[in-house]
Amino acid sequence: MNQSPQSMRVCEGSLFSDLDRETADALLNAATYRQIAEGMTLFHQGDAPSQLFQVVTGLVKLSRVSTDGSQTTLRFMGPGELVGCVAVFQQFPFPATAIASKPCSLLCWGASQILDLIHRYPPVASNALKTVGGRAREMIERVTDLSAKGVEARLAGVLLRLASQVGRNSPDGVEITHPVTRNDMAEMTGVTYFTVSRVLSAWQRQQIVRLGRERVIVIEPHRLAQIAD
Amino acid sequence: MNQSPQSMRVCEGSLFSDLDRETADALLNAATYRQIAEGMTLFHQGDAPSQLFQVVTGLVKLSRVSTDGSQTTLRFMGPGELVGCVAVFQQFPFPATAIASKPCSLLCWGASQILDLIHRYPPVASNALKTVGGRAREMIERVTDLSAKGVEARLAGVLLRLASQVGRNSPDGVEITHPVTRNDMAEMTGVTYFTVSRVLSAWQRQQIVRLGRERVIVIEPHRLAQIAD
Repeated sequence: MNQSPQSMRVCEGSLFSDLDRETADALLNAATYRQIAEGMTLFHQGDAPSQLFQVVTGLVKLSRVSTDGSQTTLRFMGPGELVGCVAVFQQFPFPATAIASKPCSLLCWGASQILDLIHRYPPVASNALKTVGGRAREMIERVTDLSAKGVEARLAGVLLRLASQVGRNSPDGVEITHPVTRNDMAEMTGVTYFTVSRVLSAWQRQQIVRLGRERVIVIEPHRLAQIAD
Repeated sequence: MNQSPQSMRVCEGSLFSDLDRETADALLNAATYRQIAEGMTLFHQGDAPSQLFQVVTGLVKLSRVSTDGSQTTLRFMGPGELVGCVAVFQQFPFPATAIASKPCSLLCWGASQILDLIHRYPPVASNALKTVGGRAREMIERVTDLSAKGVEARLAGVLLRLASQVGRNSPDGVEITHPVTRNDMAEMTGVTYFTVSRVLSAWQRQQIVRLGRERVIVIEPHRLAQIAD
């Protein structure tokens, strides 16, 4: 947690990919470095897209609020990921609310600043395009999954994504635990809490996962990958 | 259908938005103009992203094929829309198959050509970023809808989108007909053909739509909009 903004991790982030030193410095010098506590809001759904964030350490949760007030977890974003990029680059209101699920350190750019950098440095524009393209690609996959795949395949895909993103190695396998709840898993899969519990219990009997209090341990990721396909 | 590639319509396309004359000419001169018959394939899912297309006239259907061979209609794309942009700009294989649903005329660019233009002309990069951002935004909306909304709200949203994109004005309302089938509507909504038929019949009884052989006429779009929200 004592990483400075100049540390390696930052420069591996997608907006910094393959930049020459001068361009990377321009990007870094335009950023401010911020630390925020767990539970703090980066922005609300519907807010003007005034700032772009890159996660340095910690975890951010993106969720959507429907007109009826119900909330849906869209995704979690960890180190190196850009939060708010689709809205900032396209200049429309943030489509989701971003909250720190863990204490976070972040690089922040004002929207006009980052749009100016994109205009001045083609390699930054190219990285921005790749990042937003990656987001579009992930969403295309999820739309197809939600339309065409069964509940088990979708939940298996969500667990694998969470394991690689927020999982911790334990003697038994990869542990998914706080701040990711079964409700998050249900919302990311597009099913109810009870369906998630039922499927996870069946997988526990088949020794694919082990369940604990507020934790899911993935024992056999390759069997989850088979189910996801 | 006798529009030349220099016609107004082309220049309103998002890649051409707000370009000065020199840049617009560079973009247009790098393009080739192609006419293709109904049923022809522009590219297959999994193909290398070698070409970008802008629809000038006609209609293109994008669909995904799952590992079990089942097909899902993702969306239709009409005049001014860029087909293949997410894959070409991010340089990963096409995530879907594109087929001409009607006879089409298209502007085509080679991937390396368009990436070079993006690198040379910041306003083109900016337009590309907005287009891909728009695609990501649409997909975020659809993921949320599929996760959180009921069948009726989703189908209402799909009908409104189709009405604005491929609808024809008729004395009774906006007609959605060939090449868009009820199967397409079912796949875009993420439900079965039978569910679509059941909901459409209920809406016909409420005089929101009128149903005919291979056509759906939207009589009361504002009531569909209420249902969609």
